[in-house]
Amino acid sequence: MSEFNQPISGNELARFSGPNTFMRLPQARSFDGLDVAFLGIPMDIGTSWRSGTRFGPKQIRAESAMIRPYNMATGAAPFDHLQVADIGDLAINTFSLADSLRIIRETYGAILQHDLIPMAMGGDHSITLPILRAIAAKHGPVALVHVDAHADVNDDMFGEKETHGTVFRRAQEEGLLQSDKVYQIGLRGTGYAATDFTEAQGWGFQVFQAHELWGRGLDQLGAEIRRDIGPERPVYITYDIDSLDPAYAPGTGTPEIGGLTTPQALQLIRALRGLNIVGCDLVEVSPPYDPSGNTALTGANLLYELLCVLPGVTPH
Amino acid sequence: MSEFNQPISGNELARFSGPNTFMRLPQARSFDGLDVAFLGIPMDIGTSWRSGTRFGPKQIRAESAMIRPYNMATGAAPFDHLQVADIGDLAINTFSLADSLRIIRETYGAILQHDLIPMAMGGDHSITLPILRAIAAKHGPVALVHVDAHADVNDDMFGEKETHGTVFRRAQEEGLLQSDKVYQIGLRGTGYAATDFTEAQGWGFQVFQAHELWGRGLDQLGAEIRRDIGPERPVYITYDIDSLDPAYAPGTGTPEIGGLTTPQALQLIRALRGLNIVGCDLVEVSPPYDPSGNTALTGANLLYELLCVLPGVTPH
Amino acid sequence: MSEFNQPISGNELARFSGPNTFMRLPQARSFDGLDVAFLGIPMDIGTSWRSGTRFGPKQIRAESAMIRPYNMATGAAPFDHLQVADIGDLAINTFSLADSLRIIRETYGAILQHDLIPMAMGGDHSITLPILRAIAAKHGPVALVHVDAHADVNDDMFGEKETHGTVFRRAQEEGLLQSDKVYQIGLRGTGYAATDFTEAQGWGFQVFQAHELWGRGLDQLGAEIRRDIGPERPVYITYDIDSLDPAYAPGTGTPEIGGLTTPQALQLIRALRGLNIVGCDLVEVSPPYDPSGNTALTGANLLYELLCVLPGVTPH
Amino acid sequence: MSEFNQPISGNELARFSGPNTFMRLPQARSFDGLDVAFLGIPMDIGTSWRSGTRFGPKQIRAESAMIRPYNMATGAAPFDHLQVADIGDLAINTFSLADSLRIIRETYGAILQHDLIPMAMGGDHSITLPILRAIAAKHGPVALVHVDAHADVNDDMFGEKETHGTVFRRAQEEGLLQSDKVYQIGLRGTGYAATDFTEAQGWGFQVFQAHELWGRGLDQLGAEIRRDIGPERPVYITYDIDSLDPAYAPGTGTPEIGGLTTPQALQLIRALRGLNIVGCDLVEVSPPYDPSGNTALTGANLLYELLCVLPGVTPH
Amino acid sequence: MSEFNQPISGNELARFSGPNTFMRLPQARSFDGLDVAFLGIPMDIGTSWRSGTRFGPKQIRAESAMIRPYNMATGAAPFDHLQVADIGDLAINTFSLADSLRIIRETYGAILQHDLIPMAMGGDHSITLPILRAIAAKHGPVALVHVDAHADVNDDMFGEKETHGTVFRRAQEEGLLQSDKVYQIGLRGTGYAATDFTEAQGWGFQVFQAHELWGRGLDQLGAEIRRDIGPERPVYITYDIDSLDPAYAPGTGTPEIGGLTTPQALQLIRALRGLNIVGCDLVEVSPPYDPSGNTALTGANLLYELLCVLPGVTPH
Amino acid sequence: MSEFNQPISGNELARFSGPNTFMRLPQARSFDGLDVAFLGIPMDIGTSWRSGTRFGPKQIRAESAMIRPYNMATGAAPFDHLQVADIGDLAINTFSLADSLRIIRETYGAILQHDLIPMAMGGDHSITLPILRAIAAKHGPVALVHVDAHADVNDDMFGEKETHGTVFRRAQEEGLLQSDKVYQIGLRGTGYAATDFTEAQGWGFQVFQAHELWGRGLDQLGAEIRRDIGPERPVYITYDIDSLDPAYAPGTGTPEIGGLTTPQALQLIRALRGLNIVGCDLVEVSPPYDPSGNTALTGANLLYELLCVLPGVTPH
Ligand SMILES: [Mn+2]
Ligand SMILES: [Mn+2]
Ligand SMILES: [Mn+2]
Ligand SMILES: [Mn+2]
Ligand SMILES: [Mn+2]
Ligand SMILES: [Mn+2]
Ligand SMILES: [Mn+2]
Ligand SMILES: [Mn+2]
Ligand SMILES: [Mn+2]
Ligand SMILES: [Mn+2]
Ligand SMILES: [Mn+2]
Ligand SMILES: [Mn+2]
Repeated sequence: MSEFNQPISGNELARFSGPNTFMRLPQARSFDGLDVAFLGIPMDIGTSWRSGTRFGPKQIRAESAMIRPYNMATGAAPFDHLQVADIGDLAINTFSLADSLRIIRETYGAILQHDLIPMAMGGDHSITLPILRAIAAKHGPVALVHVDAHADVNDDMFGEKETHGTVFRRAQEEGLLQSDKVYQIGLRGTGYAATDFTEAQGWGFQVFQAHELWGRGLDQLGAEIRRDIGPERPVYITYDIDSLDPAYAPGTGTPEIGGLTTPQALQLIRALRGLNIVGCDLVEVSPPYDPSGNTALTGANLLYELLCVLPGVTPH
Repeated sequence: MSEFNQPISGNELARFSGPNTFMRLPQARSFDGLDVAFLGIPMDIGTSWRSGTRFGPKQIRAESAMIRPYNMATGAAPFDHLQVADIGDLAINTFSLADSLRIIRETYGAILQHDLIPMAMGGDHSITLPILRAIAAKHGPVALVHVDAHADVNDDMFGEKETHGTVFRRAQEEGLLQSDKVYQIGLRGTGYAATDFTEAQGWGFQVFQAHELWGRGLDQLGAEIRRDIGPERPVYITYDIDSLDPAYAPGTGTPEIGGLTTPQALQLIRALRGLNIVGCDLVEVSPPYDPSGNTALTGANLLYELLCVLPGVTPH
Repeated sequence: MSEFNQPISGNELARFSGPNTFMRLPQARSFDGLDVAFLGIPMDIGTSWRSGTRFGPKQIRAESAMIRPYNMATGAAPFDHLQVADIGDLAINTFSLADSLRIIRETYGAILQHDLIPMAMGGDHSITLPILRAIAAKHGPVALVHVDAHADVNDDMFGEKETHGTVFRRAQEEGLLQSDKVYQIGLRGTGYAATDFTEAQGWGFQVFQAHELWGRGLDQLGAEIRRDIGPERPVYITYDIDSLDPAYAPGTGTPEIGGLTTPQALQLIRALRGLNIVGCDLVEVSPPYDPSGNTALTGANLLYELLCVLPGVTPH
Repeated sequence: MSEFNQPISGNELARFSGPNTFMRLPQARSFDGLDVAFLGIPMDIGTSWRSGTRFGPKQIRAESAMIRPYNMATGAAPFDHLQVADIGDLAINTFSLADSLRIIRETYGAILQHDLIPMAMGGDHSITLPILRAIAAKHGPVALVHVDAHADVNDDMFGEKETHGTVFRRAQEEGLLQSDKVYQIGLRGTGYAATDFTEAQGWGFQVFQAHELWGRGLDQLGAEIRRDIGPERPVYITYDIDSLDPAYAPGTGTPEIGGLTTPQALQLIRALRGLNIVGCDLVEVSPPYDPSGNTALTGANLLYELLCVLPGVTPH
Repeated sequence: MSEFNQPISGNELARFSGPNTFMRLPQARSFDGLDVAFLGIPMDIGTSWRSGTRFGPKQIRAESAMIRPYNMATGAAPFDHLQVADIGDLAINTFSLADSLRIIRETYGAILQHDLIPMAMGGDHSITLPILRAIAAKHGPVALVHVDAHADVNDDMFGEKETHGTVFRRAQEEGLLQSDKVYQIGLRGTGYAATDFTEAQGWGFQVFQAHELWGRGLDQLGAEIRRDIGPERPVYITYDIDSLDPAYAPGTGTPEIGGLTTPQALQLIRALRGLNIVGCDLVEVSPPYDPSGNTALTGANLLYELLCVLPGVTPH
Repeated sequence: MSEFNQPISGNELARFSGPNTFMRLPQARSFDGLDVAFLGIPMDIGTSWRSGTRFGPKQIRAESAMIRPYNMATGAAPFDHLQVADIGDLAINTFSLADSLRIIRETYGAILQHDLIPMAMGGDHSITLPILRAIAAKHGPVALVHVDAHADVNDDMFGEKETHGTVFRRAQEEGLLQSDKVYQIGLRGTGYAATDFTEAQGWGFQVFQAHELWGRGLDQLGAEIRRDIGPERPVYITYDIDSLDPAYAPGTGTPEIGGLTTPQALQLIRALRGLNIVGCDLVEVSPPYDPSGNTALTGANLLYELLCVLPGVTPH
């Protein structure tokens, strides 16, 4: 028997049963002793097109019941090495984006009093700004791996400075990021002007547009990023599910055609093992737009794969 | 040829063609000369459970293509008597509920500079508060026919004073309503305490719970309301689609079982002919939860039936 | 063992198995000896709004697997009295409405060489005109029970004289009907002019609008129609599934709110026992608009109930 | 602050957040002190047509997040009077119906060591036989209120004696029921022979076919049943969601048209207050066939209404 | 401010608002001054399997609201160079394929009186024959880039000479094409005989079967086609969405597995810049078969990408 | 006219018409003279997560109506060489997995009295164990090409020895396989321990994990397998549709991200021509989870492609 929390086995309790926690892990009531905390941030009021991500955490957890503890491709067995739990959902204010961002910032502040890695299930991408504020307050400016169809570097949207499309400009302005260690992967589609993508490159951001990656494995890109960041630097990984092609992830708010494939997503994450990851999020899963559950299933698996490359997880 | 705008006929242009305006009416660029203006208020950030009503106006308009000008049951021919147009959507701020309510208030102020009746397609029910502010600014306190599963008289939700669940307490507090001429029809379900329904009755609101109406025609109730209001008093009609049973209207954000039927809805509206209606809205149609289109089709028809009982429409 | 064809029992072969015939009856290769022939007319090119009824026969048959031979409410056991089979689908020309109507007319002519009752699964309502031509050629003008949201008495649509909206004007003009024995039940919604409903009454058609029937049982209306027709007169029954409220039958091409309920539909049909029914159809089931299968299930049951009131079926 | 468990308020934690327990009640780890225990029995291998009820408990719990503690129509406030919790799901064997029924019997035996009322969320109807075995072992033969489209009194199906269609014949044979205090309500549709419904009447079962109830309120029927049972006799209530018309409850395995309405369902349950209810179940909710969630929402509400009529709940 | 029409910005009016025109461009009432005209041809009566493309234009327009003016990957900014508008839907006759093809031919004749490039949103593929007739009448025989799962060179279907499966044989017979400059890309699946694909090659058509393209980028193929056609020759591009794999485009009438990817589609189109394109269409989007909207979103993007390679659009 | 059964042509009878047999082939009532028999095994009680595969055969047949006889890519014309028919569905016992497996074993025993190749449409993967028992009884131990996301070599699940996850361990133990000629292709995802994949390799199974195949054509792998097996050895092919990525095949019970593509599936099958194939199955298509029909369409096409590589089919 392991000393660590284990997911409920599908042979002990049928998969369609049991608690709706991530991978049917125990729901922790205290942060003490946790290495990793999964949490939900159920919110969609920061999005500009389709809503529905408020139900993202619930469906990601439901689909995560398919995942077993051992990673066949990489040999990782995260529950042999880490104390992992689901700590439930943040009590956001569903009527106010500004207030919700404040709540996220404060709750992350409290969580990060403990020495654990938070793994957030969104929610739209606006949640990442207050998370980065709390992360930087603890770790200083961080490297950022940002996988997304969109750069999310607008200056404002409808006059608002904090939405799902302005996150990384704000983070840059506030000094939350090590600008030359920011990697934006999967960008594509259309913008309002040529500067939409180029301005961030001026700050030092490294942009890898989707069309440059079509038909290529991403292990090499992942390895280059890993080397560029190095093993010590604190790094945050923010994964917007719309980085994937809509064929793989139809259930999202602002889909863009011509995206990454799930094999590419897996290659990229698996290549990031060895980094000093201090937090992750997986955002923009909108269940009403994918009744098949594929998008949430993919989100759950990407979170699991991120778990498998956290510090301390040594493949067998 | 009528002097008034006419919907495009289904025999002139196939129904699945043409502009996505209400009943394929012309889209007006000016308010001059209009008797009635349909408009969309595409918003869902004021809702507490499922989102999606931001797509309500678009789908209500799409389904309205089925409606022809002449009302078989009542003989009303509204386009023989009124100049009606669709004036498009309000430019709400999808990231801020407070700012959106401000925009609605101001836009309605401008619209009501003209002598026309606004017919709003929501959007969640929070839109009705700024509408009533503008209506009362022009007409003084109004009588209110409020058809809904919910009383929407909470004091606050998550500390917020203006959401889709607090509308009519705010309106009452602000003196926008003639309190003894407020009729809440279709209320049901559960609340936090016994006072949830009774307090408003203390203000003079007349409550007709759904279970009191099961199995009854509503023509009589409608007639009583009409007599109680009388022909002169300005009256606003706000129609929450969740007043209907979810069998009839599954596409909504906060469904409650045991609701009204569409025959009851039609009987009620048809009985209200002869009132001095100064504005109407139809809210809470959430397309992602009803791919059949039934909910939007019903919303479109209820708006049409409301049009058929506006002042000036004389049945043949 | 009965001398007649029997549906495959759900205890003999699981319901989700076996041939996709109506009620899993044998598919007949010859018309000899048949009393009743179910057939599909998979067509949707005669419809004006949503298509999809080309898949109606397939889904009606699939859902009919739920039906067992004995009618609990009425005691009818049709397979004890009649030789019933499914004779498959008509080979319509899916690219030409006119040619398809010709094919239906000719095929029905051949079918009616035999002394059997054809029960058609549509397809859009345009199929009924060629059917009535063949029926009248054999039986002379017939009485007609027409259950529908629409009168289908337009003179033309887009200049076309034969579509799903012109059927009964054409049939009347061609002398296929006994005009004073035509009963249109469930009509509602909107039209282009007041004459849309009244003109047919001038021909003798008896119209029962839906709103006159709300909240009433239909056994009495059925009984009156039965008495008015009498036991000898040949009668054709055409059942447009859109006569039902969209809550009961969302999967149809031109839905109208405020329709009949399935209890009303069952009461009406059950009251028609004792008539000299010479043919029936059930039309306008459009599967893409109802993934639940309810609409097709209802269509299948209404056909079964019609089978239960055919001449020769004596309740136990 | 109440001494009893309370559902998490929608104003404390947004409804789309929090644990996936019934009404977001605490999940109990012990049965001590509980008056009422909600539990899931996620199973679909006892069904004959569509599967999917294995996901019933999960979706019923998800939709129950809409329900607030106070019953507006009846004044019941169950959480003021009873200690209620969700005790999670039974660990059935999803590969063996026989073994699953054994597990249910044994688990119920253990649960009923405590003085509490179990409220089961199915699962297909086959779960009720082992439940009744455990109930009768504790309470002796019980009165039974059985609301269903089907009598479920087959002798066998495919040679199997224990399936969702044989439950109440087995229960009768085994002496689990007080046969003249069995009420079967909502039966309809088709059977294999006239005896399908009549044989059980020979055992004393009282049958109320759906067509006898069309258009009628059910408060009177409920009151008669309440009087007939009396206040002392132990009574079990088994609620098959397919008793409702498919318009209200499309998400079920063996739908039958012409069923009850949700107002009828509510009237019936509300009239049963005052009985010595010793257990309840709500079965046959199959989420894949109702993406709108209406069926699960209805199931959740019926369970809540049953909670509101349990012994000890006194309306305000 | 540009001198040309601009799409409404998502920061000016929320994307789920505004007119349902392509990219929310203005709807032109005159053709004067237009360089490019988007138009809808809502029709599905020319298809052989699933219908539903009559709703294609409406959903393509709805999904096009996501597209912003500037093309990130290519630098194209079409609205800086061209006057573009949506000119609405053609008034086809939904009851007659032959008559609809006549209407299309005539309307295109009128449109092509002006010096503009028509961009058609289908509709099934049968619309392309009358379009080519009008195009050839103006420009003479044209080169053709035809991307499709099917060759559409049947001689007839059910005896009909003009359907979605016979388009390019007819066009070839009528001399509308420069036969050795016809490129059929993406063909696959099954046929009735070996000659199904080979006969057209005898006419000079160049066929690129899907399986020859699996796993390859299509920029090279596009470049070869561009060189083969040369910069002067008038070329028409017809894009059947079923050329894409059903994973990318499930919402279509005759899906075939093993198709192209959206990256391939984008590569191909982007490589065609520099051709003398005189017209384009995007056909076979059938919304009822893809509630996610992915297929329409893809169709909208492909039309946008085609716009970006029209003569006169110079990348920045 | 061929001497062999031919599918009904889509030009003879519209594709949405006719019998629901595989490719609309005749349904055989005798096995005499058949070379190949398609059959359905509609079952889902052997699955561990989502159910629904009981409807697999019905939907695979429905979607197979799109397939024409001639294979464009390979030149195969199977109906020129083989007598093929659909022999309907097996009469499994839907309430007992053990009994159903017994029935499958016995029915296959009877079928294999004839010299024909059975092509099974599942159903969940548990059907393959009794099939292999019957196959081995006739042919001795066979080579096995097993395409799947899962190895299906658990020892037991919930204590059960025969489920969809234990098939190939049982087959190995029982000596039904030539262990060093077993090829498991597409495995991926997670397991309970490192031994989940390695133990079978110890038996001689050759495992090709999905991630090793990403981005590669599978013709070469297929060719190697073909050479390794050689032309004489009897080989059985079992195709679990979940081997494909969920983007291609969402309608399945236990989806795993990062799977094969349909081009890879086609390449693999096409490379297997020349083997002594003695039977095939295609399992795990679960229609409720893919309303688009893509998964069933893919299943139908893979079965067709398998037909095209059976012994005796010589490409033109
Ligand atoms: Mn983002
Ligand atoms: Mn994004
Ligand atoms: Mn409301
Ligand atoms: Mn409401
Ligand atoms: Mn009709
Ligand atoms: Mn109709
Ligand atoms: Mn039951
Ligand atoms: Mn039942
Ligand atoms: Mn085509
Ligand atoms: Mn095509
Ligand atoms: Mn398998
Ligand atoms: Mn598998």
